[in-house]
Amino acid sequence: MVAEPNNWGRFGPADQRGTLNLLTPGRVLAALATARTGEIVSLAAPIGRNAPHLRGRPSPQHFMSIDGADFAAGTRPVGAGLRMADDALIVSAHGTTTHMDALCHMWSGDELYNGHPASEVHSYGAKRCGIDQVGGLVARAVFYDLPSHRHVDHLPAGHRVLPEELAEISEIGPGDVAVIRTGWPRVWQEAPERYAAPQPGLSAAAGRWLAERDVAAVACDNAAIGGLNERGLADEPVEDDLHLILLHRHGIHLLEMLWLEDLVAPSPGEFLFVAAPLRLSGGTASPVTPLAIL
Amino acid sequence: MVAEPNNWGRFGPADQRGTLNLLTPGRVLAALATARTGEIVSLAAPIGRNAPHLRGRPSPQHFMSIDGADFAAGTRPVGAGLRMADDALIVSAHGTTTHMDALCHMWSGDELYNGHPASEVHSYGAKRCGIDQVGGLVARAVFYDLPSHRHVDHLPAGHRVLPEELAEISEIGPGDVAVIRTGWPRVWQEAPERYAAPQPGLSAAAGRWLAERDVAAVACDNAAIGGLNERGLADEPVEDDLHLILLHRHGIHLLEMLWLEDLVAPSPGEFLFVAAPLRLSGGTASPVTPLAIL
Amino acid sequence: MVAEPNNWGRFGPADQRGTLNLLTPGRVLAALATARTGEIVSLAAPIGRNAPHLRGRPSPQHFMSIDGADFAAGTRPVGAGLRMADDALIVSAHGTTTHMDALCHMWSGDELYNGHPASEVHSYGAKRCGIDQVGGLVARAVFYDLPSHRHVDHLPAGHRVLPEELAEISEIGPGDVAVIRTGWPRVWQEAPERYAAPQPGLSAAAGRWLAERDVAAVACDNAAIGGLNERGLADEPVEDDLHLILLHRHGIHLLEMLWLEDLVAPSPGEFLFVAAPLRLSGGTASPVTPLAIL
Amino acid sequence: MVAEPNNWGRFGPADQRGTLNLLTPGRVLAALATARTGEIVSLAAPIGRNAPHLRGRPSPQHFMSIDGADFAAGTRPVGAGLRMADDALIVSAHGTTTHMDALCHMWSGDELYNGHPASEVHSYGAKRCGIDQVGGLVARAVFYDLPSHRHVDHLPAGHRVLPEELAEISEIGPGDVAVIRTGWPRVWQEAPERYAAPQPGLSAAAGRWLAERDVAAVACDNAAIGGLNERGLADEPVEDDLHLILLHRHGIHLLEMLWLEDLVAPSPGEFLFVAAPLRLSGGTASPVTPLAIL
Repeated sequence: MVAEPNNWGRFGPADQRGTLNLLTPGRVLAALATARTGEIVSLAAPIGRNAPHLRGRPSPQHFMSIDGADFAAGTRPVGAGLRMADDALIVSAHGTTTHMDALCHMWSGDELYNGHPASEVHSYGAKRCGIDQVGGLVARAVFYDLPSHRHVDHLPAGHRVLPEELAEISEIGPGDVAVIRTGWPRVWQEAPERYAAPQPGLSAAAGRWLAERDVAAVACDNAAIGGLNERGLADEPVEDDLHLILLHRHGIHLLEMLWLEDLVAPSPGEFLFVAAPLRLSGGTASPVTPLAIL
Repeated sequence: MVAEPNNWGRFGPADQRGTLNLLTPGRVLAALATARTGEIVSLAAPIGRNAPHLRGRPSPQHFMSIDGADFAAGTRPVGAGLRMADDALIVSAHGTTTHMDALCHMWSGDELYNGHPASEVHSYGAKRCGIDQVGGLVARAVFYDLPSHRHVDHLPAGHRVLPEELAEISEIGPGDVAVIRTGWPRVWQEAPERYAAPQPGLSAAAGRWLAERDVAAVACDNAAIGGLNERGLADEPVEDDLHLILLHRHGIHLLEMLWLEDLVAPSPGEFLFVAAPLRLSGGTASPVTPLAIL
Repeated sequence: MVAEPNNWGRFGPADQRGTLNLLTPGRVLAALATARTGEIVSLAAPIGRNAPHLRGRPSPQHFMSIDGADFAAGTRPVGAGLRMADDALIVSAHGTTTHMDALCHMWSGDELYNGHPASEVHSYGAKRCGIDQVGGLVARAVFYDLPSHRHVDHLPAGHRVLPEELAEISEIGPGDVAVIRTGWPRVWQEAPERYAAPQPGLSAAAGRWLAERDVAAVACDNAAIGGLNERGLADEPVEDDLHLILLHRHGIHLLEMLWLEDLVAPSPGEFLFVAAPLRLSGGTASPVTPLAIL
Repeated sequence: MVAEPNNWGRFGPADQRGTLNLLTPGRVLAALATARTGEIVSLAAPIGRNAPHLRGRPSPQHFMSIDGADFAAGTRPVGAGLRMADDALIVSAHGTTTHMDALCHMWSGDELYNGHPASEVHSYGAKRCGIDQVGGLVARAVFYDLPSHRHVDHLPAGHRVLPEELAEISEIGPGDVAVIRTGWPRVWQEAPERYAAPQPGLSAAAGRWLAERDVAAVACDNAAIGGLNERGLADEPVEDDLHLILLHRHGIHLLEMLWLEDLVAPSPGEFLFVAAPLRLSGGTASPVTPLAIL
C-alpha cells in the first residue's frame, strides 16, 4: 500500500479502473466458489416514490409512454394485434437510489483519482474515470452486519464505525468487497422524515483500515459511506473525508444506499457479490441492482 | 411443456416471474461452475450518442448537474474542499439501449402473461409483471455465435434463424440463457444509417424451439429478437410473433441489443451469465449491463 | 348563462376552446385600450429551486448541455470561434410553476368539458381540449387585490373568498379575466414550509358568481383557485369543486400560481392581460408568463 | 449606434436586457395602437413529434402522469369524484421549438453580451443574461414577408437575404420587432427530411442593417436567423455570424422557428407583437408562443 495522501499510479499511468484492477481472473473464480446455497438476493432498494431518499435531491420520475390503460380506452393494437407498454425513466442516482459511484464523482484540488485533470469532467460527461469504465464487479464479499452483531435494529445516527468493530467481525483481503450494514434504511420504513439526516457511517479510521486491506469496493446501506450530520453533510476535515480517502486517493469504488434488510447474515459471512452498473458514457454514477449469491 | 397458445399458470396462479422460477439454487450453483477462466466480459452497448438505436425512439439524454468545468470556472468547493460531479439520465430503454424486457412489455388481447389483466399496466406503472419482479438472473448461458459458425461478419438483414441452425451449434436445457449473436451491431459501426431496419432475427420456429426447451431467457444482439422489415416492424402474424411466443405465452424474459462483438466464442460454448435490471417499480424494461463470466 | 350542472354546448358542438370564444376581435381591441401607462409587469414566478411549490410534486429540473464553464475548462469553440450555452428543462406544470390549465385537466364522470370523451386523454396526450387549443389570451383584466382591500399581507389560510368580497371591489363582464390576489405566495418567502397547505382560495359561490358573469379566465396566485385543506386537498363536495364549476362545466380557463406581489393595484383596477401558453400538443397545462400591461 | 465589433455598455454597465431597454412605456402604448382588427394569430409551431426540427437535437418528450385512459381502466377518482390529467414536458428549446434566445446563448471570446464573464454560465444556469431577464416583449412588429413579396412559396435554401430586400418592403425603427418570413417551414410539411439543412437566412449585411436601426428583436421562421449550409452549420466568418452581430454585440434578442404560415401579411405591414418566455432562472432560451395581434 502506498501511503496517503494519495497512492495515485499504483495501477499504472492513466489508470481509470482503480481497485477493479484487483479483480484478477483467479480472484473471480475464487469469488464464484464462495457461493454455497445458490440463493440469489437482490440488494437494491426500489426505484420509485417510496424509496429512501436524501432531501433536496430530485426524485426518480417514471413515465409510461403507452400502457394497458390506453388499450382499455380504445387505442388500436399495432399490426395484427400486438399491444405493448413502454416507459421512460429520469434518474439522478446519487442520494435517490441504490447506486455505484464512478471514480470521477468526487475529488479535491484540480485532479481526479490517479491525476486525471478534473476539467475533463464537463457538460458532455466525464472523459476520464466515468462509470462506463467499470464493466462488471464480481468479487468475494465480506458481510459486516453491524446491527446484528450489536443486537440492535440499526446503528444510532451519530455512530461512526471504528476499525475495531469491523475487525471484530471479520478480516478482509485484497479484491474483496466490504458489504456494511448500518440498518439505517429501516428508519425510512418507520419514520421517513427522519431518514435523510443525520445518518450513521464509517469513521475515517475505518475507511483507512479498508483501504489498507486493498478492498475492491465498499458497499454500504447508508447514503454517503461516512456519516451525515444534522444538515445532511459529511463534516470531517478534508483529509478525513470518506469519499476522498476511498474513492479519490485509493480508487476504491463505492456503492451506496443498498438494501440489506433482506440479507440474512450467511455463515461464514462471505458470499459472491456481483454488480454491473449501466454503461453510461461519462457518467458519474449508475443506479444498480447488486446481487448477493449465497 | 404446456402446448401453445399459452401455457399460463404452469408456475402457479398469479405468477409474475415466468421462467425465472426455473433458476433454482441448484441450477445457480451449476451455472457458477461453468466459469472456467474467470474473465469478465461486459455485454452492454454504451449509453450515449454513438450507440445502436432504432429510428423514432427517444435517445438517452445525459446531463451533468455539476462538473469539473464548473470548478475550473470558479465554483466554490463544498465545505472544506470537496469537489464533485453529479448527473442525470433520461432513458427509454426499448430500442435505444442494451435492455431487459419485463413480462408486462407485450401482449395480445386483454391479458398479460399468466392472465394478469392488462389494465393493471397504467400511468402509475405496471402493477403486475414489472421489471422489479426480476431481481437477478444468474444462469448458464449457451452461446449461439451464428456469424462465426457461418464464417460471415453478420447475418444478412433478411435472415430468419431456423431451429436447425441453433441445434447444429448446441442443445440447450431448462433454466439456461440462449445468447444469440447475429452480428448486426457491426452495421452500426460501419453504416449507422443502415442499422435500424431491416434487421435479421429469429424465426417463429426457432422461438418455439427455445420455448420447448424451457430456457430462462433469450438474449440477442438485435433489437427485437425477431427480425424487422424495411419499415422497422415485426411482420409475422400474431401467432408467430416472437415477443408473444416467448414473453407473453411462456413467460420467457428477453434481453435485446446486447453487445456481443467483444465476446469470443468460448469453448465448450457455455459460460456464466448474470443480469440484474434496475429495480424500477412497475417498469416495462430496464437498461442493463449483462455480464459473461467465462 | 345555461344553468349548472353543466352548460356544455353553449359555444357549439365539439367546442374545445370554452370561454376563449368570448375573445372577439372587438373585445380584444377594447382590452388593448385599457392600457394607460405602457408599463409591462410579468406575473410569473421563477422556474427553479426557490419557487413556490406544492408538496409531492416533481420540481422543475434545468440542465445545461453546454455552458461557459466548459469553455473555461478547455472545450474548443465551434467553427471559427463560436461559443454557446444550451440547456434542457423538465417540467410538470401543475403545482410547481405559474401555469395555465387546459380544459382537459379535470372532470368528473366520463366526459371532459363540452362532452368530449375523457378516454381521448391517453398516454399520447389529450386528443381533445389540450393546451394547444388556446393560442393566446388577450383580454381586459379586473384586479381583485383582496389583501390590499382588507389591509392585510395575505388572506388567512382558511379563508374562502365570497362573491360579496369580489363584488365590493369591482364588477366584471363577459370576456374579462379575473386576476385574484390572495397574497399567499408571500408565505413562501417568509416560511416556505408553510406554503403548500393549507391555502386560502375562492368559495364555490365565488366561482359561480364569476361563471355567471362569463369571464374568459380566472387567474389566481394560489395553487388551486379553491382553497386547500391541511392535507393539501380541495375538500368541497364534487358539485362545489372550483375546477369542476369553472373548467369542467363552463369551459373557463384557469391560471394558477401567478406572482402578483409586484403588481401594484392600478386605478381604475383594470389592465390589459396577455397569456400565451406553449403550443404543447395534447398538453394538460403549460407553464406560462402572463403579462399585465398597465 | 455604437460601431461594431461591439457596442457593449450602451444601455449602461452590467445591463442584462439589451434592446429590451428600448421598450419604453411610450413605445409600448404606440405598439398597442398598431392593432386594427383585434385578430389574434399564434406564431408558434406545435411542440410534439410532427414539428420542424434540426437533426441531432433532442426532440421534446411529453408524458402523461395520469390520464383519462387510466380512469377507463379502473383508476379510482380522487376524493368525491374528481378525475384529472397531468403531464410532464422535457424540452431543449434550441432547434426543436419556436423559441426565444437569451442573451447568454452565444458569444465569442470570454465575455457575454455587455462584458459579463462567460464563466458565469455554468451547470447551475446562467447567472447573467438568462432568459428570466426578459419578462415580456410587447412591441410594434414590421412584417417582412419575403416569399409573398417575391411570389414564391419559400426562399431557396441557399438564399441570404440582403438589406435591400428588407428595405424594399419596409423601413423599421428603434424598438420594433422585425418578423421575417422565409417560408422554409413549408418544406417540413412537404418533405421533412429536407427541412434541417440547408436553410435560407439573413446575410450579415442584413443583420447589420437591422442592428443599425436599433430593433428590439428579430423573429424569424428559420432555425438560426442566418442560413445553414449542407451540414447544418452557419458558415460565415466569426465577424459576420448573425448571432454574434445581433445577440452578442448589440444585445438584440432573437426568436427562431416561428410559424408564420398562418399570418396573412396585414396592411400596412405592421402589427402588435407579444412574446413572454418562461421565467426559467438562468435559462439559455425558452420555448414561446409569440402572438401577432392584427
